[in-house]
Amino acid sequence: MKKIDSFIRDIPDFPKPGINYKDITPLLQDPAALRETVARLMDLIGDIKIDKVVGVESRGFLLGAILAEKLNAGFVPVRKSGKLPYKTYAEVYDLEYGKDILEIHQDAIKKGESVLLHDDVLATGGTARTACNLIEKMGGKIVQCNFLIELSYLKGELKLKDYDVRSLIGY
Amino acid sequence: MKKIDSFIRDIPDFPKPGINYKDITPLLQDPAALRETVARLMDLIGDIKIDKVVGVESRGFLLGAILAEKLNAGFVPVRKSGKLPYKTYAEVYDLEYGKDILEIHQDAIKKGESVLLHDDVLATGGTARTACNLIEKMGGKIVQCNFLIELSYLKGELKLKDYDVRSLIGY
Repeated sequence: MKKIDSFIRDIPDFPKPGINYKDITPLLQDPAALRETVARLMDLIGDIKIDKVVGVESRGFLLGAILAEKLNAGFVPVRKSGKLPYKTYAEVYDLEYGKDILEIHQDAIKKGESVLLHDDVLATGGTARTACNLIEKMGGKIVQCNFLIELSYLKGELKLKDYDVRSLIGY
Repeated sequence: MKKIDSFIRDIPDFPKPGINYKDITPLLQDPAALRETVARLMDLIGDIKIDKVVGVESRGFLLGAILAEKLNAGFVPVRKSGKLPYKTYAEVYDLEYGKDILEIHQDAIKKGESVLLHDDVLATGGTARTACNLIEKMGGKIVQCNFLIELSYLKGELKLKDYDVRSLIGY
């Protein structure tokens, strides 16, 4: 099989000029690449006991859900404001221009549970850090921040320096 | 374990008055319920060979991705307009008030491939039918339309009468 990073497609100027978007759909739609990716993410996680996998809307839902099922953990979505139907905790975070809000259900994580955060791409780290703040407010213990791709030049790891940050593919 | 339908939570008047929303997050966040659900969806699918699982944004990504990995298939997202970064095929569909657009990547399905459509809830069937139209335009063969929940009183199955429609939980 080709190396898994060869299944990541660059899309220049998406969603706006100057951004080189990493499109993971060629990887997801190839059965062998998908399975190899999941196996390697499982290796990154290792033998730690995980109670909940938190996946960030919406591309973090994909591999996040697969990992949760394989780890015998529950899956918890973190979503943009207004999408989750039940009582939520919310946290505001800064975007390049303006602000956004992430939410998590109030019953999603119990105090003391071991949590793996998963998203497809670690960029500036703002979204992941906000998700971590929500998890910790609920008493969850973040055992790993897990990404398919890390855009190292954006230094997202600086915002996550309290955590064990791991990714499969770096740029 | 409790029956899996006991993990579905009713949220009255969400996202708007008069709609009784079926919240699947209690099921997803319970490790045993999640695994039981996946096992039972796999039973619904049976031994048919599947090349691609198409999941509809964004809750259809969750169980859809898990099923793709287990079936040794690829996963293909169908998304709202403007979310997919590469060249797409698009189809307009009617909502209760107004119209919406679904898109699929042009390289996502090859002619003759066997496709399983998955979404969490079958309601009026408009979204699922639109996704099926996109798949068939690309030459995909839809072998099953697979749902966690079917709201039978909305008669979505009428819009999908050309297909093998299966769901785990009916209301």
